[in-house]
Amino acid sequence: MTVPQLKFDEDGLVPAIVQDADTGEVLMLAYMNEQALDKTLSDSLATFFSRSRQQLWRKGESSGHLQHVVEVRVDCDLDAILLRVKQDVAACHEGYRTCFYRRMENGSLRIVEKKVFDPAATYGKKGA
Amino acid sequence: MTVPQLKFDEDGLVPAIVQDADTGEVLMLAYMNEQALDKTLSDSLATFFSRSRQQLWRKGESSGHLQHVVEVRVDCDLDAILLRVKQDVAACHEGYRTCFYRRMENGSLRIVEKKVFDPAATYGKKGA
Repeated sequence: MTVPQLKFDEDGLVPAIVQDADTGEVLMLAYMNEQALDKTLSDSLATFFSRSRQQLWRKGESSGHLQHVVEVRVDCDLDAILLRVKQDVAACHEGYRTCFYRRMENGSLRIVEKKVFDPAATYGKKGA
Repeated sequence: MTVPQLKFDEDGLVPAIVQDADTGEVLMLAYMNEQALDKTLSDSLATFFSRSRQQLWRKGESSGHLQHVVEVRVDCDLDAILLRVKQDVAACHEGYRTCFYRRMENGSLRIVEKKVFDPAATYGKKGA
């Protein structure tokens, strides 16, 4: 089911931008291998490849914060993916709706979003 | 001026998502090294590192289609950047507003955006 001409890198991965289909908000950047993309296309729930854990990772498997895929787009060079999703609760394991919750300002970082859930309560220790 | 804790990869790069600050549209994904980020922060015009040409590349240097940076955000893991920009004309060298002009549909790609300029007239042969 995967588009055959997609260009995975030397590690077999392609970066995937995740965007909220309703608000347009950019939620996160993750990576997919061919299997993750196949899984995502087959059940319309975002699955990525975790580079740290070296395994498939369904977004929300710990938190319940699934990403329901509305549309998958590819870029002109066929080396990046854009997932447009309906996000349950929030994308970021830090408790924010988006992983991009900090702005660069004069060499430092300022939090510009509000937390929407408590990570300690959701994950116990840590998760995604 | 760069945020010191930002995590560049083994090639000294970090992926940068570019989003239209007005429409929320995701325009492209490119890569920055520290110098590209410094340049972007200092003059508020998006500059990337071209992996194919192995050199700094001011977006729009051939086409005139500059990206005026409104805001720079970083993600929770400090290994991805989000640039929110005002885009002159269009981001994609293929003539579309966004590089993500194709949708995956049942294993094939369908163009779902309209061209907004003629690449042959803008670049002569090819450019960015």
